[in-house]
Amino acid sequence: MEQVSMEATNPNPSSMSGVAAASAAELLCCANARALLDSVDAFLFDCDGDKLIDGVPQTLDMLRSKGKKLVFVTNNSTKSRIQYANKFQSLGLSVNQDEIFSSSFAAAMYLKVNQFPPHKKVYVIGGEGIVQELQLAGFTALGGPEDAEKRAQWKSNCLFEHDKYVGAVVVGLDPDINYYKLQYATLCIRENPGCLFIATNRDSVGHMTDLQEWPGAGCMVAAVCGSTEQEPIVVGKPSTFMMDFLLQKFNVSTSRMCMVGDRLDTDILFGQNAGCKTLLVLSGVTTQSTLDDPSNSIKPDYYTNKVSDILSLLGE
Amino acid sequence: MEQVSMEATNPNPSSMSGVAAASAAELLCCANARALLDSVDAFLFDCDGDKLIDGVPQTLDMLRSKGKKLVFVTNNSTKSRIQYANKFQSLGLSVNQDEIFSSSFAAAMYLKVNQFPPHKKVYVIGGEGIVQELQLAGFTALGGPEDAEKRAQWKSNCLFEHDKYVGAVVVGLDPDINYYKLQYATLCIRENPGCLFIATNRDSVGHMTDLQEWPGAGCMVAAVCGSTEQEPIVVGKPSTFMMDFLLQKFNVSTSRMCMVGDRLDTDILFGQNAGCKTLLVLSGVTTQSTLDDPSNSIKPDYYTNKVSDILSLLGE
Repeated sequence: MEQVSMEATNPNPSSMSGVAAASAAELLCCANARALLDSVDAFLFDCDGDKLIDGVPQTLDMLRSKGKKLVFVTNNSTKSRIQYANKFQSLGLSVNQDEIFSSSFAAAMYLKVNQFPPHKKVYVIGGEGIVQELQLAGFTALGGPEDAEKRAQWKSNCLFEHDKYVGAVVVGLDPDINYYKLQYATLCIRENPGCLFIATNRDSVGHMTDLQEWPGAGCMVAAVCGSTEQEPIVVGKPSTFMMDFLLQKFNVSTSRMCMVGDRLDTDILFGQNAGCKTLLVLSGVTTQSTLDDPSNSIKPDYYTNKVSDILSLLGE
Repeated sequence: MEQVSMEATNPNPSSMSGVAAASAAELLCCANARALLDSVDAFLFDCDGDKLIDGVPQTLDMLRSKGKKLVFVTNNSTKSRIQYANKFQSLGLSVNQDEIFSSSFAAAMYLKVNQFPPHKKVYVIGGEGIVQELQLAGFTALGGPEDAEKRAQWKSNCLFEHDKYVGAVVVGLDPDINYYKLQYATLCIRENPGCLFIATNRDSVGHMTDLQEWPGAGCMVAAVCGSTEQEPIVVGKPSTFMMDFLLQKFNVSTSRMCMVGDRLDTDILFGQNAGCKTLLVLSGVTTQSTLDDPSNSIKPDYYTNKVSDILSLLGE
């Protein structure tokens, strides 16, 4: 892969929704399914919802056989890509780790494409997934699960020592967040010249259990914003870093990508803002009536009941 | 004390600095010290710096003997007022707990003056100081140090139970911050109808040790902002809740209060924005040359070397 300098950007969610609202969503049918397939080189599937992949192995196989790139996108940073591939495998889906774009991987790739110096280190607030991806990319990671039980000493003459070679702090969802980690990250960002502050994502909450929404990475990221008075570089959704990365890696432009997901205000809006085609599946949180409601201004290019409709409509 | 409804407000720091910049600071001398004394009914001393009270027992005694109210203001919420009074005592300063206005006390008083229903409960992210002040004001406090070792269970079918009677969450500096507390506070604010979100203060860092700045309450407050997508009611500096409270309690208007402190961008600006007179002491972080620098737009009404100059200039 060529080394290029890329900035992760956070598009203004409202900037293009007006354009999108002007055209109605088309129900996927034989004719436009064929046109979609011909106009797209990469399908991006959102994996953060609950019913992301509903019995679609044959659909994925067909898309691969047509030479389409498949990318499974998730803001969850707790797992590495290998761990994700294993999880998909256990669900009966054959997904290669190269097809997974998790925010943990995104953080490592951001450093890679921005030529982060190999002698510098990365401090992690987050889980094993981030640490693993950083190490796989050749970086030295500190913190993460290793610092789960550490405690900062509150004594009047105490000096909290931190590594002066830390050149980036990566913050993601951390079920073992503590004051020690917050202080370590804060000192690196405030005191190490040029230290980067990278957020896997800023989701306020997520489905950590089936029954409730729990604080997401946005909670830990905000904590570090609060103590450092700095804003992070976001590499997961809704940042378009992923699209920039795919363009570099596979030479696929965003106009030839199709974002597939079940949420209008995240998946579809994100895809539209990045300049991708969009396909809404009604197998998740969005119903036909929500899509059709006059108050909804976010219209995907196409919609269908479920991912496997692509296969049946093409008669393959 | 009468029960009144008060809103804690966060003044725009830039809104009045232009006015202040127009008039130069006067060096305190015999004549204007007398005028200051005659025009002020309450002196507010900032206690968050390092050298706040430099050998001033006689000065404080003199001010008290003239019938002046003394208020020792701190954003530190880890101690209760009783604990602060004991700390002052150990430094050889006789300060009554009624003269202390800590942000822990401010949180309890905010609930009191806003008639928080006594059957409702308060969840605390923070130290013993907040819990004690809430209890002294007659409220039921949950969380705080008691939840320091608790852990949220990350199981797919786990339901995190929280008390539906929690009607307010108070967030301050918490050296034992953890995911359990963040999840508890988040659920209360997101799911209990009308639940208040109160911050003792939003200081990004503070002098927890003599050698370094460590993450302050602003870190924990931001974390809860991140997971709840809500902004807090701030009761400590630079909110003017304290002035509103003193007006109600002692019937002293802000124009007859004088804020005394050693920091231009916090103490003096805060006093000016609240409409108080201001006295800068050069015994702390601000030097004469910083004050006189053309780039400094924050000019106190008066300045002097140290607090005890008030006594010597008045010849008492």
